[in-house]
Amino acid sequence: MRRSCFITLLTDFGNQDAYVGIMKGVIAGINPQANTIDICHNIPAQDIFSGAYLLSTSYKYFPKGTIHVAVVDPGVGSRRDIVCVETRDYIFLTPDNGLLGFVVKEERPKNIVRVTNNRYFLPSPSNTFHGRDVFAPVAAHLSLGIKPQKLGIGISQLERLEIPKPTYKKPGQLEGQIIFIDRFGNLITNITREHIAQCNHKRFPLPILPFHKGRNAKKSSDFSPIQGGEKIDRQHAMETTIGRKKIVGLSKTYTDVKVGEPLVLLGSAGFLEVSINQGNARKYFKVDRGNKIVIKSVSS
Amino acid sequence: MRRSCFITLLTDFGNQDAYVGIMKGVIAGINPQANTIDICHNIPAQDIFSGAYLLSTSYKYFPKGTIHVAVVDPGVGSRRDIVCVETRDYIFLTPDNGLLGFVVKEERPKNIVRVTNNRYFLPSPSNTFHGRDVFAPVAAHLSLGIKPQKLGIGISQLERLEIPKPTYKKPGQLEGQIIFIDRFGNLITNITREHIAQCNHKRFPLPILPFHKGRNAKKSSDFSPIQGGEKIDRQHAMETTIGRKKIVGLSKTYTDVKVGEPLVLLGSAGFLEVSINQGNARKYFKVDRGNKIVIKSVSS
Amino acid sequence: MRRSCFITLLTDFGNQDAYVGIMKGVIAGINPQANTIDICHNIPAQDIFSGAYLLSTSYKYFPKGTIHVAVVDPGVGSRRDIVCVETRDYIFLTPDNGLLGFVVKEERPKNIVRVTNNRYFLPSPSNTFHGRDVFAPVAAHLSLGIKPQKLGIGISQLERLEIPKPTYKKPGQLEGQIIFIDRFGNLITNITREHIAQCNHKRFPLPILPFHKGRNAKKSSDFSPIQGGEKIDRQHAMETTIGRKKIVGLSKTYTDVKVGEPLVLLGSAGFLEVSINQGNARKYFKVDRGNKIVIKSVSS
Repeated sequence: MRRSCFITLLTDFGNQDAYVGIMKGVIAGINPQANTIDICHNIPAQDIFSGAYLLSTSYKYFPKGTIHVAVVDPGVGSRRDIVCVETRDYIFLTPDNGLLGFVVKEERPKNIVRVTNNRYFLPSPSNTFHGRDVFAPVAAHLSLGIKPQKLGIGISQLERLEIPKPTYKKPGQLEGQIIFIDRFGNLITNITREHIAQCNHKRFPLPILPFHKGRNAKKSSDFSPIQGGEKIDRQHAMETTIGRKKIVGLSKTYTDVKVGEPLVLLGSAGFLEVSINQGNARKYFKVDRGNKIVIKSVSS
Repeated sequence: MRRSCFITLLTDFGNQDAYVGIMKGVIAGINPQANTIDICHNIPAQDIFSGAYLLSTSYKYFPKGTIHVAVVDPGVGSRRDIVCVETRDYIFLTPDNGLLGFVVKEERPKNIVRVTNNRYFLPSPSNTFHGRDVFAPVAAHLSLGIKPQKLGIGISQLERLEIPKPTYKKPGQLEGQIIFIDRFGNLITNITREHIAQCNHKRFPLPILPFHKGRNAKKSSDFSPIQGGEKIDRQHAMETTIGRKKIVGLSKTYTDVKVGEPLVLLGSAGFLEVSINQGNARKYFKVDRGNKIVIKSVSS
Repeated sequence: MRRSCFITLLTDFGNQDAYVGIMKGVIAGINPQANTIDICHNIPAQDIFSGAYLLSTSYKYFPKGTIHVAVVDPGVGSRRDIVCVETRDYIFLTPDNGLLGFVVKEERPKNIVRVTNNRYFLPSPSNTFHGRDVFAPVAAHLSLGIKPQKLGIGISQLERLEIPKPTYKKPGQLEGQIIFIDRFGNLITNITREHIAQCNHKRFPLPILPFHKGRNAKKSSDFSPIQGGEKIDRQHAMETTIGRKKIVGLSKTYTDVKVGEPLVLLGSAGFLEVSINQGNARKYFKVDRGNKIVIKSVSS
């Protein structure tokens, strides 16, 4: 038996049916010691991109050895493969449809196996519910110590996920887009601190405001979201354009602005995020996933 | 202590209150070793039928000895009984209001006990939250090995659930109805493969298409959803009428048709199901539970 | 290691993101033996009052020693404190923003610690997700037996929560308000049996109907929701006014009235509650939190 036996589940099965509970039953039947933890089951139906994003924000907070099962699977029952991907610290079990697209930007696969050995499936698997008939039993067997190699044949590549990249339209001007919106209406973009830093190395740097000495600033040394030694031009401010609205400055936390006011910060998953203090930025800006966002420097 | 101590919960308590968490607290207080697993808590309020359906699709995927607690209980605090039903492999604890209506079509009750022994309840139980005061503590005691017989007096019958049956209107024509709609908008009907097979034994058989050689067909021996030796008339196709629309053929999996197109298949719980590949059949057909569906043969 | 290691989570993080799963991952990484139980994650965003209410209805049903983590935290990243509050039976870990407002009416804090020792935080905590970076790791360390005193410096007071109190407008007339509405549409008020009993001690008593001999009354001694020796004037009935509607009498359970009819009862958390038998009182009365409710005596 493996030392760790955590299995996580991330699906688009929702909370109104019994699909997730059934998967847990199957796991419990094969490995009663397995500890199954829900990451999220309300991925919009068949929305691989959102599933991939949420998986990437969460997998690394679990103990080494955790088996991450992600099932957003519009191609269930079709020719699409199921893959078991081993990295240094984790095992991932997903349909091969791009669900690991964000993860593999951070975790190098040590080996990738196409899962075909039906010895580890439920008998007579259905064509419509592989969560129950394939993913759950295979995950449970992995948690008992079965080696991924036993599940099928090694392959060398995963399906890719198209992840939109920010573009440098003009010197010192970066155009990204909203890639995810959370429960609070926070608009999470595809712009990371690395994109901003890169921009800063060009001839026309995108300046970053020294963090807003907001109303609630603690010791200035605390919690600096941008780490490392970027050279910051303190004569300029960052300006974010979203729709027809502009937000000047980069905040450290939601409460740096007054209640109901918009702000931009680097969110907990490392992406630039547009929010409203105690409000809902999705409703405020009337935007949705895919809408563009532009950051540039303005003289301050 | 019993070897297995899995307790499942299926309720209409939703996820916006603390009702389910409270039940888990009560269980943990009585048996800290009990492993409580959620099946579903978003049964529409007081919808016994949906609760009964979902319970029947899930209970058998749990380890033998699992205690299944289902609380959809519009009669809480009234004269309705609470029953503990033992079958060969499971123990069920529910209000006696038909919640076991689908289960008992598959699992023969070995004994049925009317739960009255308040020694196993919380002290001073309320009239409005038996989930906390009766179901949770009784389930926890069962998980510690208390025999169902200790909970009250044996009775011989359970309340029945009215489950609509498909009817054979004309030779080779079967009329069923939608009994459940899942998160994806899949329309699950009351028609099983047995109903279709029975129809096939009559003088005017309802033909079943050899499974669609769909775009994604694997080896033809794979995953045949209709098992056994039905005599299939390969000159005829199955036609499904829903509302004013018709679907010809029986698919094996969602991806047998193009994205956005409707299909009919035998779903993972064994019922005929109308779906849209990567779409929502409820919205597409503008139907709801109770709407009828007719299948018949057409020359192909 | 502590004997009990239950950790509960109550947040406004919802079920559509991965925030809750991430917290569980962090806990599992620090104490793989910890048993994490969800109380509720669908507190309306930033609604401290509802979080405080639901926490108070649930904490006491968990085993002694349980660590209750509640994160409804509009001030995350600001100057607001995080506190660890020890009572005789439990440990609470929350932002100091009133979330414990209902709890401390029942549980006397033995000691209150302002949590500042970042040895027990994740490294480089963010400013926007203390659930992951502070609450989860601190809770996990508490579950390993770390004493609250190690987390920071003792303080003497918690932030208060404004809880509206019922008022005695005229003799024998009590005005309260709706403080919470549950999934079923039940309207939970701020009026307890103590408020009613107190009213009964005044010169013009608010009478309480002997419980409705409803259609489903069991033995009259069963489940009396008002305990103790209140002197009840059986010549009078209680009348509840909500909006422009009146309800006469106090029911014991939902089924005391016909399906679809309104009723008033003492709910499972001890508050007066307005409901519809198998219906939704929020929709029926078209009311919301904060709406007032008046109870008084009428001759019967």
